[in-house]
Amino acid sequence: MTNKKEIIAGIIIIGNEVLSGRTKDVNTSSIAIWLNSLGIKVNEVRTIPDDEKIIIDTVNELRKKFNYVFTTGGIGPTHDDITAESISKAFNLVYGFQKEAFSILEKYYKPGEFTEGRQKMAKMPTTANLILNPSSGAPGFYVENVFCLPGVPSILKSMLGGLNNILVGGDPVISKTLNLRTVESEIAKSLSEIQDQNQEVEIGSYPFFRAGKLGVSIVIRSTNQSKIDQCNDQILNFIKVKDIEILKEI
Amino acid sequence: MTNKKEIIAGIIIIGNEVLSGRTKDVNTSSIAIWLNSLGIKVNEVRTIPDDEKIIIDTVNELRKKFNYVFTTGGIGPTHDDITAESISKAFNLVYGFQKEAFSILEKYYKPGEFTEGRQKMAKMPTTANLILNPSSGAPGFYVENVFCLPGVPSILKSMLGGLNNILVGGDPVISKTLNLRTVESEIAKSLSEIQDQNQEVEIGSYPFFRAGKLGVSIVIRSTNQSKIDQCNDQILNFIKVKDIEILKEI
Repeated sequence: MTNKKEIIAGIIIIGNEVLSGRTKDVNTSSIAIWLNSLGIKVNEVRTIPDDEKIIIDTVNELRKKFNYVFTTGGIGPTHDDITAESISKAFNLVYGFQKEAFSILEKYYKPGEFTEGRQKMAKMPTTANLILNPSSGAPGFYVENVFCLPGVPSILKSMLGGLNNILVGGDPVISKTLNLRTVESEIAKSLSEIQDQNQEVEIGSYPFFRAGKLGVSIVIRSTNQSKIDQCNDQILNFIKVKDIEILKEI
Repeated sequence: MTNKKEIIAGIIIIGNEVLSGRTKDVNTSSIAIWLNSLGIKVNEVRTIPDDEKIIIDTVNELRKKFNYVFTTGGIGPTHDDITAESISKAFNLVYGFQKEAFSILEKYYKPGEFTEGRQKMAKMPTTANLILNPSSGAPGFYVENVFCLPGVPSILKSMLGGLNNILVGGDPVISKTLNLRTVESEIAKSLSEIQDQNQEVEIGSYPFFRAGKLGVSIVIRSTNQSKIDQCNDQILNFIKVKDIEILKEI
């Protein structure tokens, strides 16, 4: 098995509505699961306000730190959508009409309906590359390693596939999950010993509370299937000894 | 009306399970809504891996930047729960049994069941203050302005109220929401003009897609009710002129 370099990404969630608690972020999960399938690992997520200086500083910090950066939110037509202009400033690029985006939106709307408000959605760094939007016309865009996506979850999700051939990933991370009817403190010691013996896998332990009952999900993650299997066997052994019920294996 | 200083907070979500996309973070929303009610505004959320150095660096950066910092996750009994030890290192404090926590847990479990694994939950900076846990015994803790909570959403939620008298907030932010049957580009220009005329309120515009139909939520936020009302009246005026249907006012 070749050992490719680890490819890592950061996500920037731009939006006062998430910071106020009004909206729960689900885009991180969509982006992370999709990136995992391409062999790219998300190492950090930052949620920040609709504030130009903070957006510029965060983008400039994270684009140096990670192979890829994804932003969500703030590319719509209203006054609080300031991502495209902030990205232009972060890269010192001219903010204005991107010709291809203008042409896509011009065709998308009926004659006379491509108003000034809607034209704003074609404004971005003029040299940006587009991320096409199969759901609602208005494209996202990317500059170097920074990819700017909208905040509406269903639209964002529909746009990710268009980037599959543009991103270069590493070995995909695979995982195995065991849902157990137990509590963490019952299995902590055995799990810790198994983690020590299996440095090439990452073992996570996540308690849950569903339908009035406690349980624990054990998640084994690695780029190497045989290491996962080996670790899984060791866990199954101690589960058997302790007589713990397995609720689900995924 | 007195103008208190703005009190701001940061949240650190600690957990590989959120970064992998497996778990969607809902704790940010619980903490943010609760803090809003106390007059404390969340300005940044960072989601980071279960990695000691990253936890230490992030805590040390954010505790200087914000009045309050909240961490979630990593205070359980398993090997991947490293928050308490990392916080001890961030503050250069001794990591060991906190006597009150030990005593709470000792009483919580049946004789003989307070195992080594469970005892780990009493380990933290030995001089930390506890955050009591009405759901499942194991307490959280705080050191100076850093408050460490568990990752399980229902348990976290049950512990917040215990901090109401410890945190000092500013003027609570109030909000008014108008859900409209329209699209953002239809209202962008009018909304932008109203925002320009009402600098003391923050107007957010959030498109949604529900039951196959598009809509926009307009959220007006301020610490000043009369400024919100004034801005709301101006918005209702242009909505009437444009003949836009109001779906809900909250």
